[in-house]
Amino acid sequence: MTHTASFDGVLDAARQIAGAAVRTPLIESPALNERLGGRVLLKAETLQRAGAFKFRGAYNRISRLTEEEKTRGVVAYSSGNHAQAVAAAARMVGTSAVIVMPADSPKVKVEGVIEFGGEVRFYDRYTESREAIGEEIAATRGSVLVRPFDDPFVIEGQGTTGLEIVEQAGAVGADLDQLLCGASGGGLIAGINLSMAARSPSTRVIGVEPREYNDTELSLAAGERLTYAPPQSPSICDALMSDRPGELTFPINRRLDRVVTVTDAEAAEAVRYAFRTLKLVVEPGGAVSLAALLAGKVETAGLTTAVVLSGGNIDLSLFAEIIEGRFAG
Amino acid sequence: MTHTASFDGVLDAARQIAGAAVRTPLIESPALNERLGGRVLLKAETLQRAGAFKFRGAYNRISRLTEEEKTRGVVAYSSGNHAQAVAAAARMVGTSAVIVMPADSPKVKVEGVIEFGGEVRFYDRYTESREAIGEEIAATRGSVLVRPFDDPFVIEGQGTTGLEIVEQAGAVGADLDQLLCGASGGGLIAGINLSMAARSPSTRVIGVEPREYNDTELSLAAGERLTYAPPQSPSICDALMSDRPGELTFPINRRLDRVVTVTDAEAAEAVRYAFRTLKLVVEPGGAVSLAALLAGKVETAGLTTAVVLSGGNIDLSLFAEIIEGRFAG
Repeated sequence: MTHTASFDGVLDAARQIAGAAVRTPLIESPALNERLGGRVLLKAETLQRAGAFKFRGAYNRISRLTEEEKTRGVVAYSSGNHAQAVAAAARMVGTSAVIVMPADSPKVKVEGVIEFGGEVRFYDRYTESREAIGEEIAATRGSVLVRPFDDPFVIEGQGTTGLEIVEQAGAVGADLDQLLCGASGGGLIAGINLSMAARSPSTRVIGVEPREYNDTELSLAAGERLTYAPPQSPSICDALMSDRPGELTFPINRRLDRVVTVTDAEAAEAVRYAFRTLKLVVEPGGAVSLAALLAGKVETAGLTTAVVLSGGNIDLSLFAEIIEGRFAG
Repeated sequence: MTHTASFDGVLDAARQIAGAAVRTPLIESPALNERLGGRVLLKAETLQRAGAFKFRGAYNRISRLTEEEKTRGVVAYSSGNHAQAVAAAARMVGTSAVIVMPADSPKVKVEGVIEFGGEVRFYDRYTESREAIGEEIAATRGSVLVRPFDDPFVIEGQGTTGLEIVEQAGAVGADLDQLLCGASGGGLIAGINLSMAARSPSTRVIGVEPREYNDTELSLAAGERLTYAPPQSPSICDALMSDRPGELTFPINRRLDRVVTVTDAEAAEAVRYAFRTLKLVVEPGGAVSLAALLAGKVETAGLTTAVVLSGGNIDLSLFAEIIEGRFAG
């Protein structure tokens, strides 16, 4: 593949996904502004098709399949949000999808894949390689492998989030000092970096990771992609448990102003705040940027800050535990 | 008071509340559209300041107080959402608020009033008259009583919801066949009727009530305001437990196409659906219009339907019960 992710590609993706993806609202909460002493604009990708930003990239890739490729279906590996997005996009364009998912994926994400007509193949997060399984299925069936972040069309699709943020902020007279976004493989934040570099270059883009899964922070500090041995215990931020930055995303994400990290307890507090005050359902991995603000990890007073709420697919049992304060993070 | 609620008043209210109230998004969910076979646009008043549409009317009234009136404060009676809205608006304009609330109000609503700096006076829903208590406090202190619906400025403030729906629907190319909105005292739906009559007269406006608190349905059928003896058991739709339509709102609401009713179990199912699929936190009383659609009480196939999600202030224990399916409606 000779295509390289670029801002022109983001603009093309915006045309490609129009009508299929939701142009999600940029929400402002007076209560949050007052608490933080600045202006905060929340990009609610929780309201995206299939409940997370992932649909943008998946649809941008899958809707470009040839008719011949469609007969052989797609395959993807994912902790859950990319999984649902690929299943949803595949159904919309009339092809089939096999999704390789960790056996301990949130139930809501597995159910989502099945509801969208996807076929699920479980693997053990600690003993098997999802990449190897995905590539084997792709080879056997002749299917196209839709990577969760190391694909230029996927990065460009996610980048439309940033494009919309700039447009919507402009429409409400906001000039963005900074933008916070979670980082795992780094596809979303890379796409957003492409958009911000072109359309709002003075906005500082800040990555946010779970404290125990900070491979992007460590890699940026080292100046190279580190493969990081994550702890054996999972984070409640299941969407952000990557062990190294992407090959295509990392060079783009060198442009990040910095990376900050949040604990599981801080992510849970953001989920609870979003429920109680914002009236939004956000999954822990989708709430890390908000968590960073609420925990005071990034200065907000007197500034205008955009925050991506990247996904809302959370198991009801965990959600109930968190909002009732029973979660011990 | 010689002021009569009118569409000109709604336009004036829109100017009055601009910058203070949130212009809430009109949200579209592909999953909901697919389920109902039509186009559904959700006006998310859950995202309004203080978590419900009530702020619009309260601010439109309270921001018009004279400096002299402000020194004597305001008083209001309310099951909770109007209570919080009055407290929030009073604080913003620099006056004090005493709120008369039922002793069994949702905790989240009482806490909201206190957080906004309001003073709470509890009463017993079954043995005391909130109107009498409110009027006595107003008389003793010389405070302005801010009625929850029988006030033209309050009706006009709520009517801005309808104005925004028409504008926002137009911006996404939607022509509204029908609009569903909950009815209690009838302030919101009366204000919306004023806006729709002026700006989208062919849109059918349909009221929705809890099955056991259908005073508007019965009054419209009788052709006059009936005072209805509600059951001794409360509904989970605490925001909609009125015993008769308002004096000012009822004449306006004669224009309703019809009223449909939903059970507590149907309202709970809508809360659960909003959590799981829409990723929105909606209180039962705020979810009745969505409930009516999900329960098939109103035809949606091939139509464009606007739905008001009127509030999101729900106690976390009830929310957890509902989403986990433990609620026995």
